[in-house]
Amino acid sequence: MCRLGIVLTDTVTISFARAVELVSSAFFRAGVPRPVSASVAEALVTAEAEGQIGHGIIRLADYIEQVRSQRINVNANISVVSRGAASLYVDADFGFAYPAIDEALARGLPIAQELGICVIAIGNSHHCGALSFHVERIAAAGLIGLMFANTPKAIAPWGSRDAVFGTNPIAFSAPRLGSHPLVIDLSLSRVARGKVMAAKKSGDKIPLGWALDCHGNPTTEPDDALAGSMIPIGGAKGTALALMVEILAAVFSESALSVEAGSFFDAAGLPPKVGQALIAIRPASERTFASRLEQLLEIISSQEGARLPGTRRQQALSNAHKNGLEVPRSLISVAQDLATGAPSENKRPLKPL
Amino acid sequence: MCRLGIVLTDTVTISFARAVELVSSAFFRAGVPRPVSASVAEALVTAEAEGQIGHGIIRLADYIEQVRSQRINVNANISVVSRGAASLYVDADFGFAYPAIDEALARGLPIAQELGICVIAIGNSHHCGALSFHVERIAAAGLIGLMFANTPKAIAPWGSRDAVFGTNPIAFSAPRLGSHPLVIDLSLSRVARGKVMAAKKSGDKIPLGWALDCHGNPTTEPDDALAGSMIPIGGAKGTALALMVEILAAVFSESALSVEAGSFFDAAGLPPKVGQALIAIRPASERTFASRLEQLLEIISSQEGARLPGTRRQQALSNAHKNGLEVPRSLISVAQDLATGAPSENKRPLKPL
Repeated sequence: MCRLGIVLTDTVTISFARAVELVSSAFFRAGVPRPVSASVAEALVTAEAEGQIGHGIIRLADYIEQVRSQRINVNANISVVSRGAASLYVDADFGFAYPAIDEALARGLPIAQELGICVIAIGNSHHCGALSFHVERIAAAGLIGLMFANTPKAIAPWGSRDAVFGTNPIAFSAPRLGSHPLVIDLSLSRVARGKVMAAKKSGDKIPLGWALDCHGNPTTEPDDALAGSMIPIGGAKGTALALMVEILAAVFSESALSVEAGSFFDAAGLPPKVGQALIAIRPASERTFASRLEQLLEIISSQEGARLPGTRRQQALSNAHKNGLEVPRSLISVAQDLATGAPSENKRPLKPL
Repeated sequence: MCRLGIVLTDTVTISFARAVELVSSAFFRAGVPRPVSASVAEALVTAEAEGQIGHGIIRLADYIEQVRSQRINVNANISVVSRGAASLYVDADFGFAYPAIDEALARGLPIAQELGICVIAIGNSHHCGALSFHVERIAAAGLIGLMFANTPKAIAPWGSRDAVFGTNPIAFSAPRLGSHPLVIDLSLSRVARGKVMAAKKSGDKIPLGWALDCHGNPTTEPDDALAGSMIPIGGAKGTALALMVEILAAVFSESALSVEAGSFFDAAGLPPKVGQALIAIRPASERTFASRLEQLLEIISSQEGARLPGTRRQQALSNAHKNGLEVPRSLISVAQDLATGAPSENKRPLKPL
């Protein structure tokens, strides 16, 4: 099994609950309060279980590095301000994004239920992982969900050279009757930047069409790609969408632009300070909406070769809840060391917070 | 000059106001009430002036054909229903989309100003032309705008064969200080379907990468492309976005799915009955928002080769307001005939409405 370029043939099976407990304990031991540890662990293990491993348990060590270097504020005071009856601002206070998003949903969804729509901007935030995890909870409440997030710079404006936009994901969800919500979650680069990092680690070239070098020319060299930019979907249309997400996620939340944001990985440098925006919309009639949606999804599913977005992800999650997750032994070992304080090469001494 | 495949070397210059008056008179003479004629004419002439000629004066003859065959209801009773304090439904009653959108903005924008956000679904609607025209008015009111529209089927779900989604455009706008709003307007096919129709008329092949035939294979034959489907931007990501737009525009407004919608062009068959959705969002502070947005746009503009979306369009419009529009003489001639009742091969006798 090739995982971000590291060959990890050896896996272990762990129950969903045990994985959450383990990851949560690792955060707690690093000084993260219990409820925050639980919120972050739930998100990482869900992503892992869904096969979105780039947002999964592999993030644990990076997050803890950033906790140690105080680029993640473990004592964040999440505050909520009303910007209007149907508009909220949540200040993540440079802490983890996950508990701030939990708060945004807890406060915003009842407003959308009452008024028909609610928008929530989350500022001074951090990596929010797979957006599917968040919008799925909007649809589970019977609402249509939209989410936009900016990420550190990776995509150049079309026709130019330097990265300005993040891979700036867009997510969408819609409630279904008697079924998992429909969930769409996509970033605006053709391929994830993690795939370039994986090629670098394994010493492989990357295919043309993934990335540009720092002169704006197509490249097959991972190093040149990482110093350059990722190619957006749809050329100029993709960078127009990335600009839209940048404005909704970063400008609207008064957070750092992608070009200003610190890394999600590095222990040194500025905190990311990115932003997110969530919109929840109530259908006029949940039953009419869901029944029309079912007709549409049936038309799609009945076509040979077509697949509904999110299906594989939801099946993997459901399987993991039943039968446990298969996780690389090395990842579990890192988590165990972090949770118990045993020595690990991935662990540095805790700084006083 | 090649215009949708017809060689039109002969152009005339006409003032913006005179063009609106002429197009409006043509609608009025076809039985469309004066205020509706004015609303539609303003939108078509604006698109023409902006260089978006596929949504411009060329639509006049098609619209009038659909008025004559009662596929556009000229006596539409546009009604507005509240779906919640921040959510409206506008029934376009099978009339033109433009006056329904005018009503949606007139009713919805004050709500967004007051509550922070407002969503408006427009149902039983028709072709709404260039979305830029509509979202620009949201930003002109100091609000962030989003718009989604479904259109008759053109794009197949990724991996399959039959068109299910329209080219389903997405538009976005943001207010700027002392400048035209920033406007993004894009459809989810790689190229406009009109370009395939143009190639058919001129007897040219189309490049690979534009469209698929009815077996889902790449084609260079315009006829095969028109019987097949348009290729979306970004592969599976593009059709996921098309599904998102389909749900927001058609399902949320309880209108026809793209696969069910009648043509925007043909005089026969079902009315389009498509839907649109508009979202208007108030920034917390218009000044803070606009000043951060200016920083972002400055970073983009300062890059060699980069261009802000909508710039050329806005420059062309501004030029047309000053110096008039250059329009093919044949189009003006059709409009004049329709406006005055002189004989024209494009005109059929009026049916009683």
